[in-house]
Amino acid sequence: MEFKEYLKKNSALIDKELEKFFPKKLEKEWLEKALGKAEYKLDEQTITKSLAEPIWDFLERGGKRWRPTLMLLSYEALGGRNKKKIMPLTVLPELLHNGSIMIDDIEDSSELRRGKKCTHLIFGEDITINAGNTMYFLPFIVLYRNELNLKDKTLRKIYDLCSIEMMKLSAGQAMDILWHRENQSHLTEEHYLQMCAYKTGALARLSAKLGAILTEANPKETEKIGKYAESIGVAFQIQDDVLNLVGEKFSKGKGKGEDIHEGKKTLILLHTLKKASEEDRKRLEEIIESHPEEQEIINETIGIMEKYGSIEYAKEKAKSLVKKSWKEVEPFLKKGKAKEKLKEFGKYLTEREI
Amino acid sequence: MEFKEYLKKNSALIDKELEKFFPKKLEKEWLEKALGKAEYKLDEQTITKSLAEPIWDFLERGGKRWRPTLMLLSYEALGGRNKKKIMPLTVLPELLHNGSIMIDDIEDSSELRRGKKCTHLIFGEDITINAGNTMYFLPFIVLYRNELNLKDKTLRKIYDLCSIEMMKLSAGQAMDILWHRENQSHLTEEHYLQMCAYKTGALARLSAKLGAILTEANPKETEKIGKYAESIGVAFQIQDDVLNLVGEKFSKGKGKGEDIHEGKKTLILLHTLKKASEEDRKRLEEIIESHPEEQEIINETIGIMEKYGSIEYAKEKAKSLVKKSWKEVEPFLKKGKAKEKLKEFGKYLTEREI
Repeated sequence: MEFKEYLKKNSALIDKELEKFFPKKLEKEWLEKALGKAEYKLDEQTITKSLAEPIWDFLERGGKRWRPTLMLLSYEALGGRNKKKIMPLTVLPELLHNGSIMIDDIEDSSELRRGKKCTHLIFGEDITINAGNTMYFLPFIVLYRNELNLKDKTLRKIYDLCSIEMMKLSAGQAMDILWHRENQSHLTEEHYLQMCAYKTGALARLSAKLGAILTEANPKETEKIGKYAESIGVAFQIQDDVLNLVGEKFSKGKGKGEDIHEGKKTLILLHTLKKASEEDRKRLEEIIESHPEEQEIINETIGIMEKYGSIEYAKEKAKSLVKKSWKEVEPFLKKGKAKEKLKEFGKYLTEREI
Repeated sequence: MEFKEYLKKNSALIDKELEKFFPKKLEKEWLEKALGKAEYKLDEQTITKSLAEPIWDFLERGGKRWRPTLMLLSYEALGGRNKKKIMPLTVLPELLHNGSIMIDDIEDSSELRRGKKCTHLIFGEDITINAGNTMYFLPFIVLYRNELNLKDKTLRKIYDLCSIEMMKLSAGQAMDILWHRENQSHLTEEHYLQMCAYKTGALARLSAKLGAILTEANPKETEKIGKYAESIGVAFQIQDDVLNLVGEKFSKGKGKGEDIHEGKKTLILLHTLKKASEEDRKRLEEIIESHPEEQEIINETIGIMEKYGSIEYAKEKAKSLVKKSWKEVEPFLKKGKAKEKLKEFGKYLTEREI
């Protein structure tokens, strides 16, 4: 089976878990299971309208659901044998991820997400911020109700993991937001990679490490598979930047070269700025500061980037990061289908054309 | 010492803990302690600017810091004897609370907070949402670094507690937002109390239960002290609504009777709607739907509410809730100063005039 097919098949299973976990209509029974017995009187109708509806409107837009898949593959490749038991926890990385992009869209004043108007443009900013933030805690219901009957030690490890990764996500977002805003002459490629390791790497790492913790992998194995996942996250982001310049279709409903218009400090841009002749560098800085919209100038910019091999460089960088971290985790993985899929996973996500 | 003085003295201690925990300038050392070793290169300057600055701008506006005080009193009244050891955890309820009102201000499009322009009007909405959300995970650093050397079981209990209370906070906010927006003829007083138990009760309950967990109280004691704290939270909110109609000063920089203008479904309003003659009820509904600004109409509304004793009713309700839950927790508490203060605490917060 091609990896794309495999991912699709898996995503249908994750969707089922999401539906089982978080009903589209929130009734008293579910609410009291989630929040404990209500002291006074619940307003199920209102909570459904302001939580379940915006959250499901978002979830139903789809997505590759690759984080839960990464979690499951890590679990199995490290020897986990009870996939069925841990399935309810697949909602954890998926809900944190969806919450974070719902919030991202507000922070970036985005208009489109997966071909549809952003949630805040449908439900309002107040409802959407609250719904997005709810998704940061919603999946912990699986932990605090402990229906999987996990040990205190395991639960503590999972909570620790989620907390540190959510902190990294925040730090990554903090960098990304400010970098867009102001002139950032101090930035280097290493800064960009760090931002990606936090912003895109965090939930990838969380997913893989969650799988590892659930199969009681040792700290070294857990760390190595986390790093592999992180490198996939970073490479995924770099590939996103590449596709924005040379791809056929664009994520987030973005137009070709929109990153240039936004002044995004990508690895590609930082590489060109470092390598370019003084004349080209000055021209490039001038363009970036002017936030151009004209396709002609966008094409000129891409031309300068290509002249210094920066797009090719970024592609190679993405591939080599994944390759290197794979080499380090590979010896720890049990031979078999999960291991193979995990390797394909890295290749698929970082070499994707869409 | 008067309780007000006591609270003030305590708040100075909490401020010290906050400063110790989260520096105003984030250097490499702190960041690596909090986030782990950076794989590539940190941008400390940017993270300081987009996280530490907005968070400190907010924290320095002050506040009563009553949640950490509640945590400490609960701990001691249930027999805890090592206050010094648990002090670093006082930042937990305080940071969650501050994060939640920073976010609240965006959701409500507020302009003033503690006499100063709201954070999002100073730093921008993107930075502020991200900073507020960061505060939802920031205090967990104390847990995952485990410098207090707590047992897995205790850590797990604290994480469980924070997760369920943050879910309740979200549910309360979900109700509050939607109730402001649309006509809500189905609402009763019991609904309002439930919203308060979630929205204002959650972090009060979290604070008290945190103190209880840290002294290894049994589940019954923990539950009872949580309920006492919850009732204080609810009463605090009711008193807020009362003061908005008849107070001398107003919280959040609100003007007199602004709740009427906003169409807020308070306990007072719901009580009047239930008790009023058909004529008065119709007039009241008409006024609420017109979102009046004129002081004359605001005063007319307050007059109708007074006619049916609704303001007095709300005040009494607040007092009786606290009294009742005190009676239930009281037998479980060790005699002494902490117990006395805990009682005064309820009285002070719910009978305050500001």
